[in-house]
Amino acid sequence: MESTLLPKTVKIVEVGPRDGLQNEATAIATATKVELIARLGKAGLKAIEATSFVSPKWVPQMADNAVVMRTIERLPGVAYPVLTPNLKGLEAALAAGAREVAVFGAASESFSQKNINCSIADSLKRFEPLLAAAEQAGVQVRGYVSCVLGCPYEGPVQPAAVAQVADTLFDMGCHEISLGDTIGVGTPEAAKRLIETVGARIPIDRIAGHYHDTYGMAIANIYASLQCGVTVFDASVAGLGGCPYAKGASGNVATEDVVYLLNGLGIATGIDLDALIDCSAWISAALGRSPASKVARARIGRTTPATEPS
Amino acid sequence: MESTLLPKTVKIVEVGPRDGLQNEATAIATATKVELIARLGKAGLKAIEATSFVSPKWVPQMADNAVVMRTIERLPGVAYPVLTPNLKGLEAALAAGAREVAVFGAASESFSQKNINCSIADSLKRFEPLLAAAEQAGVQVRGYVSCVLGCPYEGPVQPAAVAQVADTLFDMGCHEISLGDTIGVGTPEAAKRLIETVGARIPIDRIAGHYHDTYGMAIANIYASLQCGVTVFDASVAGLGGCPYAKGASGNVATEDVVYLLNGLGIATGIDLDALIDCSAWISAALGRSPASKVARARIGRTTPATEPS
Repeated sequence: MESTLLPKTVKIVEVGPRDGLQNEATAIATATKVELIARLGKAGLKAIEATSFVSPKWVPQMADNAVVMRTIERLPGVAYPVLTPNLKGLEAALAAGAREVAVFGAASESFSQKNINCSIADSLKRFEPLLAAAEQAGVQVRGYVSCVLGCPYEGPVQPAAVAQVADTLFDMGCHEISLGDTIGVGTPEAAKRLIETVGARIPIDRIAGHYHDTYGMAIANIYASLQCGVTVFDASVAGLGGCPYAKGASGNVATEDVVYLLNGLGIATGIDLDALIDCSAWISAALGRSPASKVARARIGRTTPATEPS
Repeated sequence: MESTLLPKTVKIVEVGPRDGLQNEATAIATATKVELIARLGKAGLKAIEATSFVSPKWVPQMADNAVVMRTIERLPGVAYPVLTPNLKGLEAALAAGAREVAVFGAASESFSQKNINCSIADSLKRFEPLLAAAEQAGVQVRGYVSCVLGCPYEGPVQPAAVAQVADTLFDMGCHEISLGDTIGVGTPEAAKRLIETVGARIPIDRIAGHYHDTYGMAIANIYASLQCGVTVFDASVAGLGGCPYAKGASGNVATEDVVYLLNGLGIATGIDLDALIDCSAWISAALGRSPASKVARARIGRTTPATEPS
């Protein structure tokens, strides 16, 4: 028996309105997006990725990005970061009132080429003017690294390759590095080796875990990461987004499931699980499906009294 | 960063043909049950709970128990335990050729009363003649304890209450005690406290973890239990069985997901994951549904080459 020292508090970065909804095939009304963001804020989320300032040619679902940013009610103490792939996106985001942005790199060369049509090195170099402009505007930049535990084209990815990209983004000025298991193939000891390797290069409190639940491992990977001292995790309400690499499979881990885990571990998040499940049921109904969250499904379908630990 | 010493090998007790199928509303052909057991054996499972010798009045799905036991092909080195609630069940099981049986107790008084119409103490007392007869027949008896991390009627259950029941069953002669999170509400640190408490009373290699994935915590609970030295886990192919306490929710953790976890951790099981997924797809199709296994769904729906670690 070992004793584990887990963090006392954790921040969840809600990525449903951006990373989740951008994968939806049918157009979603701007009013629905705005209400989703409002409900997430009321449930206690302190960081809600609101939209993406990419070309509507590539991601038509996010074409209303500026309207979303101008319409949402900004709750005090809540950050509403947006994804900005380049300087043009940053300028549009700043004009629309964004105060925190994010950039996106890959740890796998094949994924970088297929996803953004350039090498890892080139993709990082392209962020330089963006990071300079963001610094001048006093806006924090989050750095995403994808394929940290496996690549759909290359298979296993070495922790050292991830650490190199993460370290470069951190040195360039990113305040937080989100390590994404984009295809959800990682398992807990691999997650620990990854965090250990990246944590040797950048401070542990600047590392976020971004796990997909495609193979059902996300909650275990989060538990393993907590054991390494990670205190920031990305999640998507109702598991919005799915997986583009496997039809009918899960994508982003559901925020409800992460909050349930953290509640059970006695780790504070400031999030009201009941309000979050209401939000999950609401957005799932709006999209005409059931939540891809086991906690939401268990709570909604419960036939016995509310007796589980809460 | 902590280092964890995990077991090198794990035994999985497959409970799909009994614990899973008994919850099915429509009758399943005996031939389907027999083929399921055969396919599980070929996939490398070394313990397959085959059926239940309960009254067909209570569990009509298991009315063909004797036929199943007389028909299945017994692979060398594979155990085919059956559930026996009482001496009458044991006698019928032995007559049908069972060489390993299991009994079922609860750690929650309310659950015991509602599920088997007697107190915990009375239920254990009733097993005495069964255990004596099993010993005389040279047949091993597994002891299940339900509601170990929560009860649908009482809420949280104390580890000491579980340890008391587990210890009694062990003292009565059960060779292995399976600790069941019947409603799937447990989280990893609670699982660790439970294992620690029970492990202080009975040897760790006689404890099995039986986790339900109703709240999506099963894989994390298994990982936590591995960190405590547990080397036996129950699972149900395709997640067969569902949850009788929440409509549409998950029940037994899917065997495929457990094997995927263990493969990723470098822990040997002797199970062929591809053959297991084929079996999962086959039984799910026979029941007219998709597997309740994220690994099976990800593999079946995969649109990129087979590049994940296997």
